[in-house]
Amino acid sequence: MVKNAFYAQSGGVTSVINASACGVIETARKHNDKIGNVFAGKNGIIGALQEDLIDTSLESDNDIAALRHTPSGAFGSCRFKLKGIDENRREYERLIEVFKAHNIGYFFYNGGGDSADTCYKVSQISRNLGFPVQAIHIPKTVDNDLPITDNCPGFGSVAKYVALSAREASFDVASMAKTSTKVFILEVMGRHAGWIAAAGALAADEKNDIPVVILFPEVDFNQKKFLALVDEKVKSHGYCTIIVSEGAQWEDGKFLAEQGTRDAFGHAQLGGAAPVVAGMVKEALGYKFHWAVADYLQRSARHIASKTDVEQAYAVGKAAVEMALDGESSIMTIIDRVSNNPYKWKIGKADLSKVANVEKMMPKEFISSDGFNITPSCRQYLLPLIMGEDYPPYINGLPDYVTLKNQLLAKQLKEFLI
Amino acid sequence: MVKNAFYAQSGGVTSVINASACGVIETARKHNDKIGNVFAGKNGIIGALQEDLIDTSLESDNDIAALRHTPSGAFGSCRFKLKGIDENRREYERLIEVFKAHNIGYFFYNGGGDSADTCYKVSQISRNLGFPVQAIHIPKTVDNDLPITDNCPGFGSVAKYVALSAREASFDVASMAKTSTKVFILEVMGRHAGWIAAAGALAADEKNDIPVVILFPEVDFNQKKFLALVDEKVKSHGYCTIIVSEGAQWEDGKFLAEQGTRDAFGHAQLGGAAPVVAGMVKEALGYKFHWAVADYLQRSARHIASKTDVEQAYAVGKAAVEMALDGESSIMTIIDRVSNNPYKWKIGKADLSKVANVEKMMPKEFISSDGFNITPSCRQYLLPLIMGEDYPPYINGLPDYVTLKNQLLAKQLKEFLI
Repeated sequence: MVKNAFYAQSGGVTSVINASACGVIETARKHNDKIGNVFAGKNGIIGALQEDLIDTSLESDNDIAALRHTPSGAFGSCRFKLKGIDENRREYERLIEVFKAHNIGYFFYNGGGDSADTCYKVSQISRNLGFPVQAIHIPKTVDNDLPITDNCPGFGSVAKYVALSAREASFDVASMAKTSTKVFILEVMGRHAGWIAAAGALAADEKNDIPVVILFPEVDFNQKKFLALVDEKVKSHGYCTIIVSEGAQWEDGKFLAEQGTRDAFGHAQLGGAAPVVAGMVKEALGYKFHWAVADYLQRSARHIASKTDVEQAYAVGKAAVEMALDGESSIMTIIDRVSNNPYKWKIGKADLSKVANVEKMMPKEFISSDGFNITPSCRQYLLPLIMGEDYPPYINGLPDYVTLKNQLLAKQLKEFLI
Repeated sequence: MVKNAFYAQSGGVTSVINASACGVIETARKHNDKIGNVFAGKNGIIGALQEDLIDTSLESDNDIAALRHTPSGAFGSCRFKLKGIDENRREYERLIEVFKAHNIGYFFYNGGGDSADTCYKVSQISRNLGFPVQAIHIPKTVDNDLPITDNCPGFGSVAKYVALSAREASFDVASMAKTSTKVFILEVMGRHAGWIAAAGALAADEKNDIPVVILFPEVDFNQKKFLALVDEKVKSHGYCTIIVSEGAQWEDGKFLAEQGTRDAFGHAQLGGAAPVVAGMVKEALGYKFHWAVADYLQRSARHIASKTDVEQAYAVGKAAVEMALDGESSIMTIIDRVSNNPYKWKIGKADLSKVANVEKMMPKEFISSDGFNITPSCRQYLLPLIMGEDYPPYINGLPDYVTLKNQLLAKQLKEFLI
């Protein structure tokens, strides 16, 4: 019996989450004898709860193909975590009600750890509520912190952006250091895990002797050691490039970014580990500095996405549909690393019960003994993930990204308040 | 008689200043019957004063060709302005002394307004000091504020980066706005002129309905109007993208970035118009925000340089050598816009006496009447400058930029203290 599929994007978006959407929709279209239509949740799971379902059949093949090179969440995402079933059974019941009303037999949820938990619960409860739905999670997170999968789609492209930006800025600073800026600080994402910050170390390699110092969230900030190291790098190389994770923190768990900066009215000033680190360097060492905060630029930088990442993002979406057609449920599609040299990978699957609520931190053996750089094994892990370029088409000098029609289905149910 | 050439990079570097160097050196190599060698100043004009001259003849043709795709200043730049001749004749005399010692008959100076002034003075004084040198200025500045030339090499690539980054981040915010970030603020360079900020407006076009609000240095900041406009954009589009120039200022000339933010110790916190604007939005409108400061990333982003910009940067370097061989001196090579549709340009020249110490601001007719956007004529001016991509080669997932040997000539003169 032909059933429809539901697809939604969850949490912070990435430059390649739409490539996963592309993989889901293109693959479903190839199997229209089994999957009738793909309905996308407008603004993620909220779209399912409120019956705001986007009819993707109204989008042309060309526009769906263009999702592969378009950053952001084409159907809208949300930061909204379903509560546990015991606390809020009514939301799960509503989901099933919506699925019933629109003959939805497949639930594809594209997100990080929290979403994996939701996806798992949907898979568990749907049978009990008399309308079994195959629920498959598609991994996505720039934070690279999902377990079991070797890496997470979205991360490779951020890693490439950060490594490349750190290299380019380092070339810039190197040429200015004689009379001007000697310390450059780049703040990157990753509140809990230092994967993104680690990528900054790739700016340096055998051919590029760039002095990089990294501040990981996993390593308690030691101001004295840090300043001594920066001073040493400036003295040996003429300049120093610092990559600071937004999650870098003091021993007591307080973020560097919460240093207590206040505006003229005495209000706490939000954000910015980079200016805090800059202030320390200026105060202790007196070096001229510049700082940058990449923020959303890093995770939306589809123009310099990793080809490996794009291919993997597409593949985990495609495989989710294929595995659903094979009868799978309550799993997450994953990336298995087969070999490093040459880098080979294949798609696998993980039991969702083992994914939900597990965070994968940087292993200790990936951080150098002084705490300010990565080890060769970390480099070996990271390098394949940033390989290859996958340029979008350009029009009028800028990337030609697609904006879909996003037309909603007619509602069949009563309003639902969340 | 064969003479050598001196070439130096001055001021803040760009992603294409090395393309100009490439144009100079490759063209000089083609005319080795007239130009013996190109000596590059190590760290700009300081290299000339201290007789730190890089022997570019030791660099391979391949490495010189690679300058075309390498950002930053390959020979080092400096922030060092020669004083006026009357105040410090000794520095000019020293330059001539160095030129004499190394048989230098051509002086190519690659920089912005201040450097043009230095170049002009060198051209004027050299004859009087008994060693005539042909001095030709090669324009470079991301600020786009040199007069006479239609645009400045370096600017087109920053403009492309800013427009592209604003578009990518806007796609990101649009997909998050329902439950999360509604206002995104990107701080860009341009302390005196709003050319770079203006480029942010290109993120939006007929196909991309992106709500952009720009804060120019040329327009006194009106907080009330600004906040009302941001609120209107969020209400109509769900989100708003703000591009703030680092030079945005209040009516009294005080920079927004100098809002008086202080750290926990009460020290003035340096830099950042973006967090100041974010604080205002949060306080007045309550919207969730994110902010980014592109800083050096924007001017070193050779990975997404404008092809037009790269070609023009090369051409002004090449033409400088050719014009020198034609006997020219005391000029700057410039870019003349021949037509808009199709965009055509050619190389011209400007009298250096008319270039020195003149700053080209954004014309009033390029800024919309409300002061927060650009006009169609500004768009027509900007668009050709960001056209085309000119990707560098990649190795191990990252751009393969060249680092030269930079071997110095043996010194023939006494030490010179600056």
